[in-house]
Amino acid sequence: MLVAVPLQALAADPLPSWNDGPVKQSIVGFVTRATTQGGPGFIPPEERIATFDNDGTLWQEQPVVQGAFLLEQVKARVKEDASLAKRQPFKAVLEGDVALLSAMDEPQLMELVATTHAGKTQEEFAREARAFFQTARHPKLGVPYTQLAYAPMLELLQYLRANGFQTWISSGGGTDFMRVISEDTYGIPPQQVIGSSLKEKFDEGNGHPVLRREARLDHLNDKAGKPVGIEQHIGRRPVFAAGNVRSGGDIQMLQYTKEQPRPGFSLLLNHDDAEREFAYAEKNDASLKAAREGGWTVVSMRQDWKRIFPEGR
Amino acid sequence: MLVAVPLQALAADPLPSWNDGPVKQSIVGFVTRATTQGGPGFIPPEERIATFDNDGTLWQEQPVVQGAFLLEQVKARVKEDASLAKRQPFKAVLEGDVALLSAMDEPQLMELVATTHAGKTQEEFAREARAFFQTARHPKLGVPYTQLAYAPMLELLQYLRANGFQTWISSGGGTDFMRVISEDTYGIPPQQVIGSSLKEKFDEGNGHPVLRREARLDHLNDKAGKPVGIEQHIGRRPVFAAGNVRSGGDIQMLQYTKEQPRPGFSLLLNHDDAEREFAYAEKNDASLKAAREGGWTVVSMRQDWKRIFPEGR
Repeated sequence: MLVAVPLQALAADPLPSWNDGPVKQSIVGFVTRATTQGGPGFIPPEERIATFDNDGTLWQEQPVVQGAFLLEQVKARVKEDASLAKRQPFKAVLEGDVALLSAMDEPQLMELVATTHAGKTQEEFAREARAFFQTARHPKLGVPYTQLAYAPMLELLQYLRANGFQTWISSGGGTDFMRVISEDTYGIPPQQVIGSSLKEKFDEGNGHPVLRREARLDHLNDKAGKPVGIEQHIGRRPVFAAGNVRSGGDIQMLQYTKEQPRPGFSLLLNHDDAEREFAYAEKNDASLKAAREGGWTVVSMRQDWKRIFPEGR
Repeated sequence: MLVAVPLQALAADPLPSWNDGPVKQSIVGFVTRATTQGGPGFIPPEERIATFDNDGTLWQEQPVVQGAFLLEQVKARVKEDASLAKRQPFKAVLEGDVALLSAMDEPQLMELVATTHAGKTQEEFAREARAFFQTARHPKLGVPYTQLAYAPMLELLQYLRANGFQTWISSGGGTDFMRVISEDTYGIPPQQVIGSSLKEKFDEGNGHPVLRREARLDHLNDKAGKPVGIEQHIGRRPVFAAGNVRSGGDIQMLQYTKEQPRPGFSLLLNHDDAEREFAYAEKNDASLKAAREGGWTVVSMRQDWKRIFPEGR
């Protein structure tokens, strides 16, 4: 009988940054059932696909990090050509600063990205993004953005992987922007990052072929675009998905994960911790309403998380 | 000194269906250098990405398998509505049979796929494709299509994986058509299949959300579209790629792999074995010309392969 005790029950707490309570219990319960061979909730290893939104789910989004990167890029362009500062959308970005960037939605951000990055090769873009992450600091918290991933979510990613789940990002942010940091920050390799993307063009480059970014959106990985991006890249429904309250951008991914022949696990983060992070709500409360109707698990960052950011950062 | 001999040199021949000679030597040489730590050709494991065309590279393409599937689908539609048999493109497909299907290029095939499959859910499509593979037989060779994968290429896929390479498909065929057989036939999971795709639409379906196929091409993964598909799905340049002579569809992928800061390995299959498989050439010989100019490795199926198909199939 002793041999039948699942190994994870004997191991140290895999989610030490989560407070004990129904949310933590439901996560551990789902993973335990998914990995209990012969049990009713068993999920074969190849179907253990977990998808995570990035901004506001894996790391902070006040401001949206790619928005801060964009601001740097616009400033650099204005140095080259001062007249740009008087033209939209550059003017709005420069004047609006952090406040405006926080309010911008993904389509607006992607349009600006197209304007500032068209014609660049993928290698050039990645170099600029890497340079940004090395020097930029969060305006309020004063640390590099990659140190503002949520400790409980990093533990959750690791816990899922330790139980045979493949962890993917499915976010409205730019695919190639996130790929620069996904491996080191989350342990998620570039090929498991699904995001918004620009059209790209193959350029023969006189025998040294490169891909160049065009000023046209290819895929907007937000709202109904998230299940589409997941199908294109993975070809299976996730059995676990996580998103957050702000714009309603994760509703369809969480519905798509929860409602299927085999019910999945949908997790929704609520940013209700003004003291340790930020508190903000959604205009129409659509995400929380969908969570109630769909039986998703809602995380109160204030109540369910012991800490927000990794210690000693 | 004895300890320094690489393990694979002591193991049994990993490519028994390949005849000894310069082609086999160049493959083994590349893989040995890529995995020799400290050597000049060493490639870190995370960069060991290998991409393979499917039709004519991993399995036979006379006829193109997805073309044969399409013919079945058109026949089924005509049973429901006899008037279709008099209308194009259905008429051409029905009359042309195998001969016409062999001559069709990927864009034409994809257009027909859009016409026959629009509105279906991904699950419905996969069910139909699976049923096809269970019953269909090659018109000349009389066996299921999945038994017509090339034995030397199956060995090559396995050899690369055993040496830490990730193997991907990058083909002009439909992503979701190939995903149905990629794992069982090639050991390549659905999320490592890059192909042509239709636009898809999220359908809330009264609380049971599904994705539905639309009659519009999303991505054509052929010619210059192959490096683009690879970048979108993988986010790294392959260090190994394989394609074949027929339509010039693999030239850009093989150039993109070969010419880069770290030179990659590009393999081009030439179908010159009328006796054991099929012999066919390319109108303008563009692929072979590019191979000579780029220093790719050209496989003569007649000379370099001991057998074409797995034994005892």
